[in-house]
Amino acid sequence: MMDYPLLLRTYLIRTARYFAKKEIVSVYPEGAFRYNYGEYYQRVCRLAHALKSLGIGRGDRVASIALNDHRHLELYLGVPCCGAVLHTVNFRLPARHLVHIINHAGDRVVFVDEDLLMFIEPLKDQLTTVEKFVVLSHTGTLPQTGIENIVLYDDLIGDFPDEYDFPDDLSEQDPAMICYTSATTGDPKGVVYSHRAIVLHSLTVGITFGAGESDCILHIVPMFHANAWCAPFAGLIAGCKQVLPGREVINMEKLCRMIADEKVTFTAGVPTIWMLLFDYLEKGGWHDFSSLKTIVSGGAAIPLHLLKTFNEKYNFPIKQAYGATETTPLVSAALPKSYMTGLSDKELYDIRTSVGILVMGLEMKIVGTDGAEVEMDGTQWGEIWLRGPWIANEYYRDPERSKDAFAGGWYHTGDVATIDSEGYIRLVDRTRDLVKSAGEWISSVDLENLIMEHPGVAEAAIIGIPHPKWQERPLACVSVVDGQSVTADDLKAFLKDRVRASWWIPDDFVFLPGIPKTSVGKFDKRELRRLYAEGEIGPVNMA
Amino acid sequence: MMDYPLLLRTYLIRTARYFAKKEIVSVYPEGAFRYNYGEYYQRVCRLAHALKSLGIGRGDRVASIALNDHRHLELYLGVPCCGAVLHTVNFRLPARHLVHIINHAGDRVVFVDEDLLMFIEPLKDQLTTVEKFVVLSHTGTLPQTGIENIVLYDDLIGDFPDEYDFPDDLSEQDPAMICYTSATTGDPKGVVYSHRAIVLHSLTVGITFGAGESDCILHIVPMFHANAWCAPFAGLIAGCKQVLPGREVINMEKLCRMIADEKVTFTAGVPTIWMLLFDYLEKGGWHDFSSLKTIVSGGAAIPLHLLKTFNEKYNFPIKQAYGATETTPLVSAALPKSYMTGLSDKELYDIRTSVGILVMGLEMKIVGTDGAEVEMDGTQWGEIWLRGPWIANEYYRDPERSKDAFAGGWYHTGDVATIDSEGYIRLVDRTRDLVKSAGEWISSVDLENLIMEHPGVAEAAIIGIPHPKWQERPLACVSVVDGQSVTADDLKAFLKDRVRASWWIPDDFVFLPGIPKTSVGKFDKRELRRLYAEGEIGPVNMA
Repeated sequence: MMDYPLLLRTYLIRTARYFAKKEIVSVYPEGAFRYNYGEYYQRVCRLAHALKSLGIGRGDRVASIALNDHRHLELYLGVPCCGAVLHTVNFRLPARHLVHIINHAGDRVVFVDEDLLMFIEPLKDQLTTVEKFVVLSHTGTLPQTGIENIVLYDDLIGDFPDEYDFPDDLSEQDPAMICYTSATTGDPKGVVYSHRAIVLHSLTVGITFGAGESDCILHIVPMFHANAWCAPFAGLIAGCKQVLPGREVINMEKLCRMIADEKVTFTAGVPTIWMLLFDYLEKGGWHDFSSLKTIVSGGAAIPLHLLKTFNEKYNFPIKQAYGATETTPLVSAALPKSYMTGLSDKELYDIRTSVGILVMGLEMKIVGTDGAEVEMDGTQWGEIWLRGPWIANEYYRDPERSKDAFAGGWYHTGDVATIDSEGYIRLVDRTRDLVKSAGEWISSVDLENLIMEHPGVAEAAIIGIPHPKWQERPLACVSVVDGQSVTADDLKAFLKDRVRASWWIPDDFVFLPGIPKTSVGKFDKRELRRLYAEGEIGPVNMA
Repeated sequence: MMDYPLLLRTYLIRTARYFAKKEIVSVYPEGAFRYNYGEYYQRVCRLAHALKSLGIGRGDRVASIALNDHRHLELYLGVPCCGAVLHTVNFRLPARHLVHIINHAGDRVVFVDEDLLMFIEPLKDQLTTVEKFVVLSHTGTLPQTGIENIVLYDDLIGDFPDEYDFPDDLSEQDPAMICYTSATTGDPKGVVYSHRAIVLHSLTVGITFGAGESDCILHIVPMFHANAWCAPFAGLIAGCKQVLPGREVINMEKLCRMIADEKVTFTAGVPTIWMLLFDYLEKGGWHDFSSLKTIVSGGAAIPLHLLKTFNEKYNFPIKQAYGATETTPLVSAALPKSYMTGLSDKELYDIRTSVGILVMGLEMKIVGTDGAEVEMDGTQWGEIWLRGPWIANEYYRDPERSKDAFAGGWYHTGDVATIDSEGYIRLVDRTRDLVKSAGEWISSVDLENLIMEHPGVAEAAIIGIPHPKWQERPLACVSVVDGQSVTADDLKAFLKDRVRASWWIPDDFVFLPGIPKTSVGKFDKRELRRLYAEGEIGPVNMA
């Protein structure tokens, strides 16, 4: 067989030629912009010439700091197909992280949305590798700015020819995209995606969710978030219509209008968006979801009641999936099998609240504390290890932190899970949040959820603290509902018949006015551990 | 990203683990045999041990001479996953070709169906590389035979363990399968398929035709015919139920029962089978096609009236596709685009009788006589050139015949076609059958069809014959309907207003009692050219 590389170029050219009339829609507050893959390709070609004119060559990194729109989609294909690397920047990161990742990636050009320029302007003098700023603007006006070397995107690509000879001699292992994780400890870690990984992942996304040419994809997942889960690539490969909602992604009424007007069949997002949508719907918000076939949710678990309401009340068929920045990202999807149609509602929701079955093309081991694979019995816990063509083998320029995460040729996800006899995976906890008591694991997540079932408890977070006999014991940090009074003994009694085993019950409880949170709203257990280590919080009730 | 090879092993293991309960059905005259992927995998593991015990190692070739059943499907995965190569033998080839290809491939073991042993037995002494014969039998009885070193498949694999550690250190470019074309000139040519080619092709088949876990695939295409178009692999990868009809494939009543009883959703075949089915249906044969979603047809064109009748009268939705042994085989598929729902019946059938649009992942050029790509205007003719990860780059151990076919890094298909503005390809002729008159091409196929529209003509075949002035001119070889009388002048008059241009009209006509045919029923133009060259036939009417 030919030694023909898996490059995005091949797919771009086919779609531009044979699906030239299919539409791409960018939605702005002022209205929608529409063009088709034929016109899209011409602008991608102009972009390629422009990149060349800026001296951007193979392996060079350029950044996008942008919302989900068609110019961002032009960068998605234009940059990698030239052999350069698109660094999609999470503009919600703290300023010091923004500076770090742009410098660490060595971005030479920054493509920045006119609405996001404000995040970058104050940092400009710290960005040591950036030579040029390019403003993605749909208004056509260069904003007032103190940045020099700045140009409008449409002016930059303006007069170049609308044909380009994209190189066919790249290696499929050449980098196409780079994303940084929003690290919970230390600086963000970079993950580099090859052409090969993106192509294989996108084909697999297409088969897994049955996305084909007749689908219309709405991109709710930010395009800086693990390649928007490769939906833009999967959409291009299949010749799908694509809808990019820009800043209107958080306007639920507009989003519902888009779904109905554009006849969206497929979308994906994180629970944060589904919570906004849920509130909107419960307040009687207008919607028409009749075109929707598949909605993929990932990034965090959706509570059962939310999933049920979405499904049953609103006919909004959310499917959970699991992945990570390190995994391009799709690892598993919670799709019932065709022979499961006879299952009870409870059994079906038990499947649909799992993170699903490993997708085709990957290899997985769920490894227990003894180093052996756990049984497929739905109860044994182990860490998820992965390998496959779209699994990272290192963090970019970070050998120190790569060492453990990718030891032995497997990516150690840090996620602890069970797997049942049908292959459905259920996440238990993060390895670092598990409490290791006498060699056994206690799930902080499970324990927190149990404590939060107590009517007097507003929030509860569990951290492991050192113990002379049991190595580690859970410390429960609890905030009480205003006006209520709850004691450690109350909670111990409450937990008694609810926990998996009596030794799960925390010996120690700390009552706080509120639980500290991270920038994305999760319990900040690192901060709790620090507070405990420095003696600022301590047990009220040592056993 | 990890340097993780695309191997069939990864897909086999995932399906065996997570889709263990999905069914595989082999249909025999005595009834159906059923098991599931869990049990299938155990037998594939036993087979792997057995191959090892026979000394079959990496790169070794073993042959299958078999119908479509579950044992053949075990060979499909078991042999490549061990690192060996499965040579699927077309048992309908003439004996001298059978001997040639088994010797040429160097097959060390021959797995042969009990019903096909008769083809091989007389040849056994000529098979110089074969060390062992293994009989695939569902009756469990070793047939009476003069072959030594012969064993029943189920005995061979019988007592081995049902776990096997399939090697994960093969290269994805390692050979997995080998097929020989049924050559029209010279010996059959071998095409070697790598793991990579099969995986990528199968994923693409899945997306192109929307085949997923809920599909049930019936394998009508012989498993020796270009990997049964990789449907067994695509089915395994997605975890589909698979139905293997064995010799019942030509029993139309049984086939229709299978479709209904097993709730088949997807199948594929060549027009020969559809003709049999058509006759059966037109005679009022029982059928229930309500489960069918996709039927792929390839290998030759289906006449419009047949396609229409299948669709409209029988709700049997045939979709044409195009490919070759050299292309694993899928190249293009005649699927209307989603925005074409408003087209007229005529326009839709115009699309459905094309061979479709290039599938994702391949690159195509349609190259005219001037060496440039033709316009996408639906009229210009050119030869289809292809490249991509599942396109062959050579014929196995045949540098001489590889040279021209794969010149310049493209596979020159020998098929002349047009491509329209939407990308739909329509085959015109084979390059070797075109008549080159004064540097312009005349399609032998078109001309034959025009002549055969004359009510007095039974058959017509066109060959190009040398001409002193025009280089080549068409010679029409015609057989007349019994009892009718047709002259060259009649035919010239008939063609006058029907041909594309007046110079298409043959100067010369030869009337024959019948047109010689090849073993597969096509006009034997090689024989006609020989007859002409040796003066056995000649023009009756030289211009």
